[in-house]
Amino acid sequence: MTKRIVVLGGGFGGMYAARALRRRLGAGYEIELVNAENYFVFQPLLPEVGAGSITPAHAVSPLRFLLKGVYVRKAVVESVDFERRIVTLFQGIQRRPTEVAFDHLVVALGQSVDLSRMPGLEEHALKMKTLEDARRLRGHVIEQLEHAQVSRVPETKRGALTFCVVGGGFSGVETVGEMKELIDRSLPFYPGIKPEEVRVIVLEFADRILGEMSPKLGDYARAQLEAHGIEIMTGTGIASATGTQLVTNKGEIIDTRTIVATIGNAPSAVVRRMNLPVERGRIKVDRTLRVEGTDNIWALGDCASIPLTDAPQGPRDYAPPTAQFAVREAKRLAENVAAAIDGAPLEPFAYRSRGALASLGARRGVAQVMGLELTGFPAWLLWRSYYLMFLPGLATRIQVLLNWMLDGLSPRSVVQLRTETPPGVRHIYFRAGDKVYEAGHRSDGFYMVISGAVEMTKEDAATGKVSKRIIGPGGHFGERLILGATRRETTVHAIEDTKLLELDREAFLKLAEGFPAFREYFEPYMAKYNVKFPPERNV
Amino acid sequence: MTKRIVVLGGGFGGMYAARALRRRLGAGYEIELVNAENYFVFQPLLPEVGAGSITPAHAVSPLRFLLKGVYVRKAVVESVDFERRIVTLFQGIQRRPTEVAFDHLVVALGQSVDLSRMPGLEEHALKMKTLEDARRLRGHVIEQLEHAQVSRVPETKRGALTFCVVGGGFSGVETVGEMKELIDRSLPFYPGIKPEEVRVIVLEFADRILGEMSPKLGDYARAQLEAHGIEIMTGTGIASATGTQLVTNKGEIIDTRTIVATIGNAPSAVVRRMNLPVERGRIKVDRTLRVEGTDNIWALGDCASIPLTDAPQGPRDYAPPTAQFAVREAKRLAENVAAAIDGAPLEPFAYRSRGALASLGARRGVAQVMGLELTGFPAWLLWRSYYLMFLPGLATRIQVLLNWMLDGLSPRSVVQLRTETPPGVRHIYFRAGDKVYEAGHRSDGFYMVISGAVEMTKEDAATGKVSKRIIGPGGHFGERLILGATRRETTVHAIEDTKLLELDREAFLKLAEGFPAFREYFEPYMAKYNVKFPPERNV
Repeated sequence: MTKRIVVLGGGFGGMYAARALRRRLGAGYEIELVNAENYFVFQPLLPEVGAGSITPAHAVSPLRFLLKGVYVRKAVVESVDFERRIVTLFQGIQRRPTEVAFDHLVVALGQSVDLSRMPGLEEHALKMKTLEDARRLRGHVIEQLEHAQVSRVPETKRGALTFCVVGGGFSGVETVGEMKELIDRSLPFYPGIKPEEVRVIVLEFADRILGEMSPKLGDYARAQLEAHGIEIMTGTGIASATGTQLVTNKGEIIDTRTIVATIGNAPSAVVRRMNLPVERGRIKVDRTLRVEGTDNIWALGDCASIPLTDAPQGPRDYAPPTAQFAVREAKRLAENVAAAIDGAPLEPFAYRSRGALASLGARRGVAQVMGLELTGFPAWLLWRSYYLMFLPGLATRIQVLLNWMLDGLSPRSVVQLRTETPPGVRHIYFRAGDKVYEAGHRSDGFYMVISGAVEMTKEDAATGKVSKRIIGPGGHFGERLILGATRRETTVHAIEDTKLLELDREAFLKLAEGFPAFREYFEPYMAKYNVKFPPERNV
Repeated sequence: MTKRIVVLGGGFGGMYAARALRRRLGAGYEIELVNAENYFVFQPLLPEVGAGSITPAHAVSPLRFLLKGVYVRKAVVESVDFERRIVTLFQGIQRRPTEVAFDHLVVALGQSVDLSRMPGLEEHALKMKTLEDARRLRGHVIEQLEHAQVSRVPETKRGALTFCVVGGGFSGVETVGEMKELIDRSLPFYPGIKPEEVRVIVLEFADRILGEMSPKLGDYARAQLEAHGIEIMTGTGIASATGTQLVTNKGEIIDTRTIVATIGNAPSAVVRRMNLPVERGRIKVDRTLRVEGTDNIWALGDCASIPLTDAPQGPRDYAPPTAQFAVREAKRLAENVAAAIDGAPLEPFAYRSRGALASLGARRGVAQVMGLELTGFPAWLLWRSYYLMFLPGLATRIQVLLNWMLDGLSPRSVVQLRTETPPGVRHIYFRAGDKVYEAGHRSDGFYMVISGAVEMTKEDAATGKVSKRIIGPGGHFGERLILGATRRETTVHAIEDTKLLELDREAFLKLAEGFPAFREYFEPYMAKYNVKFPPERNV
């Protein structure tokens, strides 16, 4: 009876594992790959997508193209029953759960990002994990330039033109380099912005950037980035964040509306739910990539803790979470699964890094290849060629190459494509003293105080008399929205560090219209202004 | 003192008007253009974006590139004070209103889409007006294929594989042709879908499609589309729509999860608020493109009703809402604004169409050029060359051309890029008999009945005893979400045509956590299940 091997995750580890398994095993073996998206993301290109030097579509490739002979499911894994050898998942937009049986299970679910330890960071920071993150970053950067171009409020302009990247590893360094290039090349189209008004900052907790590389290359990278006007704050962590400010662990406050977090890797929720043995926040496997204490569960890539020696001492004795290693792990894993099926002996994973590459933007890079150390343009060229060869599919390669060439010739587009609209109900953080809104502003939200407190100030248009009101936890403000108010009549400041729940206009009006409890609760307000429910919307 | 001319809208009419004004008028004249997005959309390419034959970025061009010497504001117009000659607008993400003074105002705000006359259509139909619409369509089509590939429920699969385009004009015909090509070229990657299971339908209220063209070309187009397996229902309108069905004006019910509406053009909200003289749902201008009864307000493009003769009889005596005409109108308008400033006589707008072009997908088209009628491949080639020449910016031209060439060579990517997430609070329509959810389904929403009624069925796991409950307007269900329930225990059907308000899990939990009235209202439920607020989230 045919054996079923199910691979969870379609990143470098999972995709290459499924490929290798398909090649290694005959028709008698079904290979399935489960991934939340129907495409493979070429992670190393995300910073370039974030900077618009290549289009999102060219940093990804459909899994169905790459995995001939593998059954691809676009699905989210809910749980795994190791006893019954069943994976329960939700496919695409289906709400009915689907059970998938396996003989061998390969876990390659990567890592997710957890920023919750720093108040406000989860809510206000951009990430660089997914394709959507990269797209969002580009749109956000252009939005800040558009905003700075027209803003007449100095602190607003300063905040809009200050861009912070948290984390000085590969992802952080490549992101900041590309971001700076995007900004520099866009400025000519924003005459209202002087180049010296722009601040781009990397914050790294360690005492140097690119810790993965030699000190020499790290120093070169630092010098290069600084030469291009990027500030580098080492030994600096994040304490908290709001929509307009970032507070460092040293208490320094930076006015910024752009915080890109490349830190906070953590096991994904589904991996946590699996209750597999964990080490260093990753699934503990032996040197054969099999999960300890099991005979048919395997793990590789960023979600696995893979020892490179029998008695690992420190981090350096474990496989680093890079594409380079994931691809080699995939090959070894396929061999071992096949061996396990045949009852043959398994072999340990062994691979020594062939080197490391990082792009610094502006046609500069650093490279460590087989002992050699390269910098500047050659390193950058090597970086691009290396990844170009790495790209799956000829068409994609051609398109990325053409994109790169055209990008060199023509100005960088400052088109601001809209990305996901913020949810209608969300948390927002303010620090003591921050303005929530001001009289005369557009009425676009209704607020509830979850923690902290705000002060509402109202000036009587006729008498000029100013009245104040403190609103604490459980209190709310901005409900004049119901009346179709389009402008604020009051000014609201946070008087403590405050966490608010915001309902946007549409969500609020829909609830006011549709939800009896909501309706009854606001009836007094309605009465006070003697208006009928539901309010006439003036959109 | 310098004269200020403000152009509202950055489409074909507005963008070309600003350009022509800049060329025509000297340094003593400030030209400003206000547009909600910072880019110009090349509308005719939207169907190709929707089908993925070109990437979104290549169907648009930054207004700041195209309009050297023109001050571009990314802003939403709130109101116009014709007395004070002031436009009030909200710039980018600013909540503080900005006032912009003008001596002459050019209104080129195009048309918006109003589907509200057909219940459910606004909520459940996709549009083809903006770049986002096109992106969303592509993602949606691929999602249906993914869904059909894995669905085991026949009616679900049928609905997922039935694609309806409402409206058989240029936009509808080009959209359906491109959409069919996308589907045909994607099917090889979905072995679970048989080609004969796919239905693609155009619904047109008139008795023929492409009414803008000669009957001969209309018939040819129809034959071509039908030859490619597209069903064409003429004389057919829409009565109502839900997430899974479409009801025609003849009462026919079509199971479909894809309704693309290319109908329902209506004046935009801001144009309505301007209270300018209106005719045929558009701003009434005289033959010089000036708004009747004013000396400094002008309008052109889709938002204007432009007579081509002094005594217009029927629709044919007005300028059609096409890019071709808008561009000519822009030139005439610039001349007339300049003349008005100099006190010189104005001249009437006069232009005769040079022809019409439509792509039918699969390298087929129809063309009417200077009396000549072309069909098939030549017409398609003409269509592409024409628009290629029309594209602003050499880089864009090269990229679109390369895209087209590569698209011919390589398989169409089935990557499903995520588009905007649905709002956390939204309306959903169900027809009598529709299932809202079923026991065992994923718990992903909380529902309130706005109109109609649903029946909730619960089967006691132990006794197998079935209990039923009717829930009408003001009632709600699905609140077990609060308890972190991940699966439904009941099945809910609509027993009348029903309008529900849905809160997704996250919105509901945030409200339950943050909003006292909400909290108090649900306290009884909490007590019943004796859990504490806020619930522990299991994400």
